Amino acid sequence: MNFKQEMQAKIVVIEQLLETHLPAQEGLQKSIMEAMEYSLLAGGKRIRPLLMQESYRLFGGTKEIIEPFMVAIELIHTYSLVHDDLPAMDNDEYRRGRKTTHVVYGEGMGILAGDALLNYAFEMIATAFANYPEDSVLIGKAMGVLARKSGIYGMIGGQVVDVAAAGTTISGEVLDFIYRLKTSALMEASLMIGAILAGANEEQVQAMEEVATKTGMAFQIQDDILDVTGTIEVLGKLTHSDEKNIKTTYVTLLGLEGAKNEVERIAREAITSLRNLAVANPFLEELLEFLIYRER
Amino acid sequence: MNFKQEMQAKIVVIEQLLETHLPAQEGLQKSIMEAMEYSLLAGGKRIRPLLMQESYRLFGGTKEIIEPFMVAIELIHTYSLVHDDLPAMDNDEYRRGRKTTHVVYGEGMGILAGDALLNYAFEMIATAFANYPEDSVLIGKAMGVLARKSGIYGMIGGQVVDVAAAGTTISGEVLDFIYRLKTSALMEASLMIGAILAGANEEQVQAMEEVATKTGMAFQIQDDILDVTGTIEVLGKLTHSDEKNIKTTYVTLLGLEGAKNEVERIAREAITSLRNLAVANPFLEELLEFLIYRER
Repeated sequence: MNFKQEMQAKIVVIEQLLETHLPAQEGLQKSIMEAMEYSLLAGGKRIRPLLMQESYRLFGGTKEIIEPFMVAIELIHTYSLVHDDLPAMDNDEYRRGRKTTHVVYGEGMGILAGDALLNYAFEMIATAFANYPEDSVLIGKAMGVLARKSGIYGMIGGQVVDVAAAGTTISGEVLDFIYRLKTSALMEASLMIGAILAGANEEQVQAMEEVATKTGMAFQIQDDILDVTGTIEVLGKLTHSDEKNIKTTYVTLLGLEGAKNEVERIAREAITSLRNLAVANPFLEELLEFLIYRER
Repeated sequence: MNFKQEMQAKIVVIEQLLETHLPAQEGLQKSIMEAMEYSLLAGGKRIRPLLMQESYRLFGGTKEIIEPFMVAIELIHTYSLVHDDLPAMDNDEYRRGRKTTHVVYGEGMGILAGDALLNYAFEMIATAFANYPEDSVLIGKAMGVLARKSGIYGMIGGQVVDVAAAGTTISGEVLDFIYRLKTSALMEASLMIGAILAGANEEQVQAMEEVATKTGMAFQIQDDILDVTGTIEVLGKLTHSDEKNIKTTYVTLLGLEGAKNEVERIAREAITSLRNLAVANPFLEELLEFLIYRER
């Protein structure tokens, strides 16, 4: 099996995991379970659970304790998309070719479904405490990372600055802040939580955080590049959107070549940090390179 | 000090606790911290942290471990109000005489501030894990209750059914479902978490859940009664709003006398359950009666 086949096989397993852990569609409040399922099972690359699983394997983890966390991070990623798509935010009617949650279920339900997905992520973590009480200290640590990286010092914080920056020109420093919090933060949580639950030490967890920060940054700069060099056929979305929206990107700051060099430099640093660890997971290395050098 | 003075003194301490635990207003994402503070420090009766604290005391709890949970439950209650007030939900421009969060900070920020408050509740719980690792199992249990009672099987579930019921006539069964999930659930979490963290046994935690369920129901039926019997001067809000909105309430179902009898019956059951415990907290008993028989 080559890398892409292996990745595809792993994604199929993650899809099953997500389906299994969704709440049953029952009770008078059934409609919210439907909206949650519609939002969560809308495809997507499942990058974050995949990163988490591979970080857990890297440090020798073998238990199912990682599963509720894998589901939780995807729930949080999904809620952020549902709320981002709302009319008061990006006002997107389609995502990956399907109508967005609020278009199908109404705006009020879009808000509530996002809330429910975020809340349910922590209900997932509660099942880890219930099933592995002997690991409560580790679970508590992992939960702290999840909460922090999702909140005002992580994803939500990045979203706030991104919304405020819309339609203005910003500095490279502010752009880095947005990319780090909006994109890297959940990847950091993924790699850190995998390491923590597998019993990695403080230094190793920090190393994984750094790998994720850089992977996220390179991933996001590659996104800027694809917006200029990609074609609508390959990307499945409109290109040159940043230019049209007068958006500051790495390409507007450094030019196309400069941006490509920056991806190269940061990617090399991320891979080097990963290789410097005493343990190895070749699939994870390939996965990071795949994420960074993707063409869509 | 009489009961009301004692309650007032306790509320002052809770207000200080909330202020102390709010995130510092700093960083590029400072505006979200401002919106969170604006939402949280908007007055309010602080009923839920108060109930939690008194349940903790009832079972002999004396540590500060209860504090992050007291803050967390108020953060969750507050986020639910911020999202309820949004244009796509109740579209309220004022709450307690102040402009609502989205009116002051914009609709997008209203959504994000709600998200941030909910997320920050779990960041609070993470501090409990960090500061009391030896109590991780208890904290894990308490966190599970908090998450469940806030989510689709608790507050959010009640909200979903309430939104769906708007403008229609509903049965007493559906009304009970809404009241139990929308109002009782967070009170249940409060009394249960106080008991859990103080080391109460399973049976005692269940007894506290029952006390809270009934207190919440009686509280909500009293609300229906006040909408008919109250005056705008005392309540500080418009009365007869249920009638105007063709809303099913206990008064429309049972009439005014019937509703009053129902409050009486349920309140008596709640107090009896509380008195049946081997431990006692006279202040908590007075607090429940105060909540149920309030005139505003």
